[in-house]
Amino acid sequence: MSDFQVTERTKLKRLPERGRFDRETVYSILDAGFLCHVGFIHDGKPVVIPTAFGREGDRIYIHGSAASRMQRGAAKGIDLCVTVTHVDGLVLARSGFHSSINYRSVVIFGTATPITDPEEKTRALAIFSEHLLPGRWAEIRPPSELELKGTSVLAIELNEVSAKVRTGPPKDDEEDYALPVWAGVLPIETHFGTPIADAKLPAGIGVPEYLKDRD
Amino acid sequence: MSDFQVTERTKLKRLPERGRFDRETVYSILDAGFLCHVGFIHDGKPVVIPTAFGREGDRIYIHGSAASRMQRGAAKGIDLCVTVTHVDGLVLARSGFHSSINYRSVVIFGTATPITDPEEKTRALAIFSEHLLPGRWAEIRPPSELELKGTSVLAIELNEVSAKVRTGPPKDDEEDYALPVWAGVLPIETHFGTPIADAKLPAGIGVPEYLKDRD
Repeated sequence: MSDFQVTERTKLKRLPERGRFDRETVYSILDAGFLCHVGFIHDGKPVVIPTAFGREGDRIYIHGSAASRMQRGAAKGIDLCVTVTHVDGLVLARSGFHSSINYRSVVIFGTATPITDPEEKTRALAIFSEHLLPGRWAEIRPPSELELKGTSVLAIELNEVSAKVRTGPPKDDEEDYALPVWAGVLPIETHFGTPIADAKLPAGIGVPEYLKDRD
Repeated sequence: MSDFQVTERTKLKRLPERGRFDRETVYSILDAGFLCHVGFIHDGKPVVIPTAFGREGDRIYIHGSAASRMQRGAAKGIDLCVTVTHVDGLVLARSGFHSSINYRSVVIFGTATPITDPEEKTRALAIFSEHLLPGRWAEIRPPSELELKGTSVLAIELNEVSAKVRTGPPKDDEEDYALPVWAGVLPIETHFGTPIADAKLPAGIGVPEYLKDRD
């Protein structure tokens, strides 16, 4: 797979060694989560909204309230910045200055295209669902025509994209390594917990396989 | 404590029952994390950058690369949107349409003020540190004059602020409750893992109390 091209906007000005432009890294960061923060300009001011997304090749789909707010602007090709961040740990150095965070993030610059075709919309919604819980989409009730009309989905192409990754131990000033201060990494881990069945669930419906032993 | 005033920008257009404007809720969401997504306008386009923050009363401080990029604009009172999001679970309804996410989020609209006074800067950095690891700031090497000069810190007042919270089980269409589909909530939990000591740690420095039994 080829790398994403570096542009004036995606070039890292600080700590360029953290930059990644290869598709493998970008895809793996995007696919490790489902929440993004979408930034757009509304009435001349910046707005940042958390929302769910799904990826298919070099395209992501977002939907929900962010898409609704942006839907009118999107038809005119509104500019977006979509950012996905995973925090992996606190990096505890011997000084505050070198203390840091281990993280993986992707920043996507682009414009949004509203998906209006009901079939394409349904496919985008299936992508969200199947990414998180493979097998569930076939089990649940399919969207009605009215629901599809009430659902906003926007597509954003992955053209101007960069990833940033920090891993590993703290990097302290040479003279600080002798200080009697504990240093290292405090990992931050995110897991799925035990499924909580809806109180209104009819008797005899067990937890499906795709929810068991999820991590 | 009084509520934050609702403005045209912070009024929820969709699902207003999820809106919260009381300081207790806003503070508790902010204080439950340390990562925010900062949106600002650069060359007429939106940019969203993840960065660390700390809160003190009705003010948050951000620092790091986002602050650096914005520092010049901030001196002129650049407009920002700072969003903090915690995802608590996947809400699995009997239809895709009613499937959702349990989450807590805060959106802050405001302008940034650069902190230039070295003492105030140091205090802001201590707030970041003490919020996460109470007691550590006194142990680590204090910032040098040069480091303080190289550290960008911005303050944003909490004036125009809203929170959104979704909790609890799915809310399905009445006729869907009879469907033979598992429904409920798949919790998402974030924990600190076991501290990983730096390989260069001198012998005899044990894991400090403030890192033990963290959750």
